[in-house]
Amino acid sequence: MHIILLSGGSGKRLWPLSNDIRSKQFIKIFKTQTGEYESMVQRMYHQIREVDQDAAVTVATSKTQVSSIHNQLGDKVSVCVESSRRDTFPAIALASAYLHDEKGVPGEEPVVVCPVDPYVEKDYFEALKKLGEIARCGEAKLVFMGMEPTYPSEKYGYIIPEDANTVSRVATFKEKPDARTAEQYIRQGALWNGGVFAYQLKYVLEKAHELIDFRDYQDLAAKYGTLDKISFDYAVAEKEKDSKVMRFQGQWKDLGTWNTLTEAMEETCIGKGMVNQACENVHIVNELDVPVLCMGLKDVVVSASPEGILVSDKEQSSYIKPFVDKIDQQVMFAEKSWGSFRVLDATEESLTIKVTLNPGNKMNYHSHERRDEVWNVISGCGRSIIDGQVRSIKAGDVLDMKAGSRHTVLADTELKIIEIQFGKEISVQDKQKFEFPAL
Amino acid sequence: MHIILLSGGSGKRLWPLSNDIRSKQFIKIFKTQTGEYESMVQRMYHQIREVDQDAAVTVATSKTQVSSIHNQLGDKVSVCVESSRRDTFPAIALASAYLHDEKGVPGEEPVVVCPVDPYVEKDYFEALKKLGEIARCGEAKLVFMGMEPTYPSEKYGYIIPEDANTVSRVATFKEKPDARTAEQYIRQGALWNGGVFAYQLKYVLEKAHELIDFRDYQDLAAKYGTLDKISFDYAVAEKEKDSKVMRFQGQWKDLGTWNTLTEAMEETCIGKGMVNQACENVHIVNELDVPVLCMGLKDVVVSASPEGILVSDKEQSSYIKPFVDKIDQQVMFAEKSWGSFRVLDATEESLTIKVTLNPGNKMNYHSHERRDEVWNVISGCGRSIIDGQVRSIKAGDVLDMKAGSRHTVLADTELKIIEIQFGKEISVQDKQKFEFPAL
Repeated sequence: MHIILLSGGSGKRLWPLSNDIRSKQFIKIFKTQTGEYESMVQRMYHQIREVDQDAAVTVATSKTQVSSIHNQLGDKVSVCVESSRRDTFPAIALASAYLHDEKGVPGEEPVVVCPVDPYVEKDYFEALKKLGEIARCGEAKLVFMGMEPTYPSEKYGYIIPEDANTVSRVATFKEKPDARTAEQYIRQGALWNGGVFAYQLKYVLEKAHELIDFRDYQDLAAKYGTLDKISFDYAVAEKEKDSKVMRFQGQWKDLGTWNTLTEAMEETCIGKGMVNQACENVHIVNELDVPVLCMGLKDVVVSASPEGILVSDKEQSSYIKPFVDKIDQQVMFAEKSWGSFRVLDATEESLTIKVTLNPGNKMNYHSHERRDEVWNVISGCGRSIIDGQVRSIKAGDVLDMKAGSRHTVLADTELKIIEIQFGKEISVQDKQKFEFPAL
Repeated sequence: MHIILLSGGSGKRLWPLSNDIRSKQFIKIFKTQTGEYESMVQRMYHQIREVDQDAAVTVATSKTQVSSIHNQLGDKVSVCVESSRRDTFPAIALASAYLHDEKGVPGEEPVVVCPVDPYVEKDYFEALKKLGEIARCGEAKLVFMGMEPTYPSEKYGYIIPEDANTVSRVATFKEKPDARTAEQYIRQGALWNGGVFAYQLKYVLEKAHELIDFRDYQDLAAKYGTLDKISFDYAVAEKEKDSKVMRFQGQWKDLGTWNTLTEAMEETCIGKGMVNQACENVHIVNELDVPVLCMGLKDVVVSASPEGILVSDKEQSSYIKPFVDKIDQQVMFAEKSWGSFRVLDATEESLTIKVTLNPGNKMNYHSHERRDEVWNVISGCGRSIIDGQVRSIKAGDVLDMKAGSRHTVLADTELKIIEIQFGKEISVQDKQKFEFPAL
């Protein structure tokens, strides 16, 4: 079975853990059996593997998330990269062309599309398999998963089936309604449209060629930035007469707000923290090195990261976005394909950053025009290249790079560096990349 | 008038702003007319100056607080240093001997003793002056200020006056009672004992010589660590038949818990922070560089510092101590006589610290046995001395000091340095001091 995992939007609703760079699906918040924490994307990827070892997963995502995807899922995961955000129809068209033209997947093969962020259990993946089987048999052009609604939500579109059978023909699609209309839909037997569906690969390729002028994957990828922003529901699903829907009654939760996310947490506290006995329904998610102490709170979530600190009533936490939009500061931490960084200190003419390189990884070979840099190696070992000179480095070494000098570092073991940038105009834009020198 | 300001105990009740090193009186929390913030000790010192320009203030404090005192009040303030904590009687005896033997204050001069931490207004200092005048006239050996009680507190000792006049003879002293007993005292006209009193210098010197075998200030200071811990109330006040009490009805608040401290705050938020409209009676005191966002909270204080984050219901905040006692981490920031430091990052074999030296200040000339250090100068200019070699330094300079090398730095302007310590056994104890070299 082929699965396209849609790994979408940067979001601020889970600030300070999500920011312009880190989307919610990368926050490590779910405890695994080994006691470590994994993110939504890791959890879903591992769950798919458990249910179907042979499942071929392709992550469809934007350029900005590729580093995080590789960092969390490894280098081997198949990624279809969108050069810019164009909504779900272009994304699914691109990923479908990628499977056909790059991976050689035959047009008759069923493909299942699902977003990366719902919180689900094993039964969901069993249902995905069934969805793929229905598509393989050609029972319908498009086969949707319809989530049994638990309340008249205004957040979802609705699918109204023709009958009450587990698998039914689709009568009609409805866009996000108000609560009263949602109640009416539910009385008619409507299901939530969770954006999960299956099709034979050739079906979406045909639709893509109908709506977009392109030759093949490479061509589509090249003109991706010029495509109209349009959702798959609007461009394809709502117009398709030959579609079915399969009911799903298992766990399926959107963990898009602190309120829903903390419901899925198994523990009161992730990271350093304490709550006293007078606390009730309090959750702490703390990514800082110092402790959080909560006393006498009720229905509150506290989250701390290098970006800032949120203390919110759980209900109120869904209204966070306009406030976070007001916060104007540089990105304070990020995951990269090679590791991660965290801003430790910023002054007018300096920036102090902790850089962690994963074993076997390296930075680009690059230079800066308007800043000097110093690397203080605090742990691990590796090699630096500065203006072509290769040197072994280890904890305690200090490397000096004046503006203009070309430099990179390779980690032989995990390598931690305190990087200090000196200059009047420190900017992430001030970076020239060069071809990596031969070692 | 001579005033002895008692600057006492390190406290954890205002964690994370107070810690083992920083006592609550040094937290900068009160907005001045210029828009800057001052601490309790600064506020009281400035208030005294406003009421009486000629007041001679001596701060009686322990060794550990001397740096902070000079840092906040300047180098010229008179400080009587206790080599260890010995309770109030030895502290007042030492400060009295200091005034007499070191400052040459005549025995007939009145001295007023008051703790540094109550939150008071100008009328309090007018009252202190009156207290001093009463002592000067010799109306009684000891003249107390009695605070008009506002509720039957269990936190204070009580003074029961003989009559209801503004100044009355003391009938008796009572130790901290339970609430019911406190109510009885108040019905008898009792006043809170705030530890504020005046005497003629010779009176306490006589008492000191009666109870302690010493020659003069130098002798007393030398044997200070061997003295019994005993309070002034117990050793002197409660036994003195010839004492008076003066009623005080003005503002006098103990800001020893977050609940009382935030009551005295003029603003909702000190430092970077936001509260949404659904918040009610919420205060933020944030010493970090990143923002705190509060949503839908009621009666809550949020405080963040390099030590950690407190989120507490205001009532509950007085029960903080046992929880803070459980937190076992190194001191993350401190004020020093020469400036301040803040821990930015700690790993097993490294420590990254931001050091700020105030203009004209310098570190000790010192070395470490078991760690190397690197100084990355990020702003300002000054001079370094490493193994006797003097060198001018400025932003962008990097200085390397291997274990064993003797080093110091002098700030010509404000100087900021990122210090990185490398080693397996990094400890504050690993420090040898040497005589400062001639420049």
